[in-house]
Amino acid sequence: MSVGLTAPATGELQPIPGIRIGITQAGVRKAGKDDLAVMLLPEGATMAGVYTLNRFCAAPVTLCRERRDSDVAPRALVINTGNANAGTGKDGMARAQSICRTLAGRLGCDELGVWPFSTGVIMETLPSERIIDALPAAVAEAVEDNWLRAASAIMTTDTVPKGRSLTRVIGGASVTVTGIAKGSGMIQPNMATMLGYIGVDAQVPQPVLQAMLDEVTQESFNRVTVDGDTSTNDAFMLIANGRPGSLTVDSVEDDSYAALRDAVAEVAVFLAQSLARDGEGATKFVTIEVSGGRDRAECRQVGKAIAHSPLVKTALFASDPNLGRILAAVGYAGIDDLDVGRVGLWLGDVRVVVDGGRDPDYIEADAAAVMAEPEISMRIDLGRGLAVDQVWTCDFSYDYVRINAEYRS
Amino acid sequence: MSVGLTAPATGELQPIPGIRIGITQAGVRKAGKDDLAVMLLPEGATMAGVYTLNRFCAAPVTLCRERRDSDVAPRALVINTGNANAGTGKDGMARAQSICRTLAGRLGCDELGVWPFSTGVIMETLPSERIIDALPAAVAEAVEDNWLRAASAIMTTDTVPKGRSLTRVIGGASVTVTGIAKGSGMIQPNMATMLGYIGVDAQVPQPVLQAMLDEVTQESFNRVTVDGDTSTNDAFMLIANGRPGSLTVDSVEDDSYAALRDAVAEVAVFLAQSLARDGEGATKFVTIEVSGGRDRAECRQVGKAIAHSPLVKTALFASDPNLGRILAAVGYAGIDDLDVGRVGLWLGDVRVVVDGGRDPDYIEADAAAVMAEPEISMRIDLGRGLAVDQVWTCDFSYDYVRINAEYRS
Repeated sequence: MSVGLTAPATGELQPIPGIRIGITQAGVRKAGKDDLAVMLLPEGATMAGVYTLNRFCAAPVTLCRERRDSDVAPRALVINTGNANAGTGKDGMARAQSICRTLAGRLGCDELGVWPFSTGVIMETLPSERIIDALPAAVAEAVEDNWLRAASAIMTTDTVPKGRSLTRVIGGASVTVTGIAKGSGMIQPNMATMLGYIGVDAQVPQPVLQAMLDEVTQESFNRVTVDGDTSTNDAFMLIANGRPGSLTVDSVEDDSYAALRDAVAEVAVFLAQSLARDGEGATKFVTIEVSGGRDRAECRQVGKAIAHSPLVKTALFASDPNLGRILAAVGYAGIDDLDVGRVGLWLGDVRVVVDGGRDPDYIEADAAAVMAEPEISMRIDLGRGLAVDQVWTCDFSYDYVRINAEYRS
Repeated sequence: MSVGLTAPATGELQPIPGIRIGITQAGVRKAGKDDLAVMLLPEGATMAGVYTLNRFCAAPVTLCRERRDSDVAPRALVINTGNANAGTGKDGMARAQSICRTLAGRLGCDELGVWPFSTGVIMETLPSERIIDALPAAVAEAVEDNWLRAASAIMTTDTVPKGRSLTRVIGGASVTVTGIAKGSGMIQPNMATMLGYIGVDAQVPQPVLQAMLDEVTQESFNRVTVDGDTSTNDAFMLIANGRPGSLTVDSVEDDSYAALRDAVAEVAVFLAQSLARDGEGATKFVTIEVSGGRDRAECRQVGKAIAHSPLVKTALFASDPNLGRILAAVGYAGIDDLDVGRVGLWLGDVRVVVDGGRDPDYIEADAAAVMAEPEISMRIDLGRGLAVDQVWTCDFSYDYVRINAEYRS
């Protein structure tokens, strides 16, 4: 199940002119399921990416970094689900490369123009032959209006495809931004365990696009956590189609830069929250706001300590306003000079802790009513500064255990 | 349930001469359960302690630190279960102090000679009146041979009382060491969420005893983790009875120091492992050995990343040799310059990863056989040094969620 999340309606995800997406069934892990997507980029497109910081990054992540460091223009993305091609050593690299090489041959572009992405089980051999055999069908089917089907094709344990489109008038031009993402477990920022792709109908030089993506990632995917595990395969890509006549953003100083960044951020925040809403076994979507910090980093640190606490997460599952567990997490979040006598805590609008102790006017029934809702917000004030940050997470249920105990079977 | 853990047999926990323990039912949280223990120390006893690093430490921990910093000799410990007296502000401090003052009056000692300890629910008012009313009965009943009953009286969600005794001949003297501990959830070192008390029949000046406790804690309780949550109330105390004629250890340089420390460590390691064996919902006891590190700290850091991963823990519950999750945890453990191409992994005696990739000779059935056992050991070699460390943990089951979702109800 998921919390307050529905699949995008047919027609809701607007195409980005020139970006064509083909989907097929390669039978990577199971037959009869869309599991291979090919995204073909038009001439002049630019692309920015952020990747997992996990030292055991997967072969496709290593190859994406190689491509990032090359001068070759991006021409295609090839994305499979069912197998992460991680922990697979040289053989895994060779298999990912052979897929890229085959697709590049078909498209008549440089091998480094094809970017590979994989998600699924780790440490099993990627059946690259089956993917290679399926490439012609994926390319032949590629059409612009295919983002929704792609959102479904990249799912693993996700229960709902995740996507969002919006159109904004920026600098006199109508600009469409469309994004999709997958991920529901092994979700912890830097990056969240996820694949995310956002396309914009605009002309943006790569360094400007990368700056925009870095900013957007901080306020979206790096704020979400499901279980604190950082995956081997995370990638979040921002693609500008470079269409002549579309909005041009030449510099981070342009007025249009901020407007486009905000539009991209709105889509990215929606996608990031969707990951927590569809967190494995999630029955609650939780927003943790931490205010009164000296800087945003310490606010996020406290928010994540709360969001990662299995004790807080099981209390959320039980709709139990177990304040002690929340305060305990604040206490061990690693702020050594925290004055706990200044800490405040609110569940929804109910003030439950003031000056580090239980609010004398606090009535547990009020907090219990907040905790009974499927969407819960809590705020912690550290009482030592003006910084604020937010973290999104979900609860920890029987189903989290079931899903992760059974995933490979 | 617990893994490979049985309660100490009657008579197994040897008394420490001069240390008398009285137990009674104060009705702190529920009626009809032993929930109050008073430990009375003889003249000349010394005591060392280590406490939680949680900034939201409970009132009794704050009071223990005050007593540590005073010159008053310890005369009594008063320990209640059912209520942690944490997050209770000034009222909580006053209540803990009134308990100490009352017991001190009864014993005719300084208030600072009475050390309070509490464990149980957080952020609820400690019913100090009921504890005060029960003190006379506890004192009246105090006898030396009461460690086993104390081990039961301090339990919260523990399913088995935890205790161990041993006798060693050191420097020609026969020395008894007896310890008890409680704790099964909110267990993460520095300290593990736990209360632990070890008594030794020896004369040891306080600074020497403290040095010994600090060393022992590093190799015992700081190696165990259940869920990564650090409690507000942890305390681990080492008490030397100071009996005239018993072994005297005057300095950390004495030969007898190392021998006594090893004996205390043996008891502490047993108790620490007992916490993981009785971890909430535990069905597996897991030893994670990390070798080949540059220093012990980084070995422990990697061990804890694995031990804290909900994905690894649910795979352990499922007896699934999901190697990818283990490697992923190694990869995000925070060793930035880790060369993953040198990492090796063994499940039991089965080598599953070599040079960062799957061992070509690995047969999953062999690893599955290891994972099916209730006691599992894994070894990770980082391939960059000579340091080794160990972490003990348990798996993450449906019952962990159930226990923690229902704890307050």
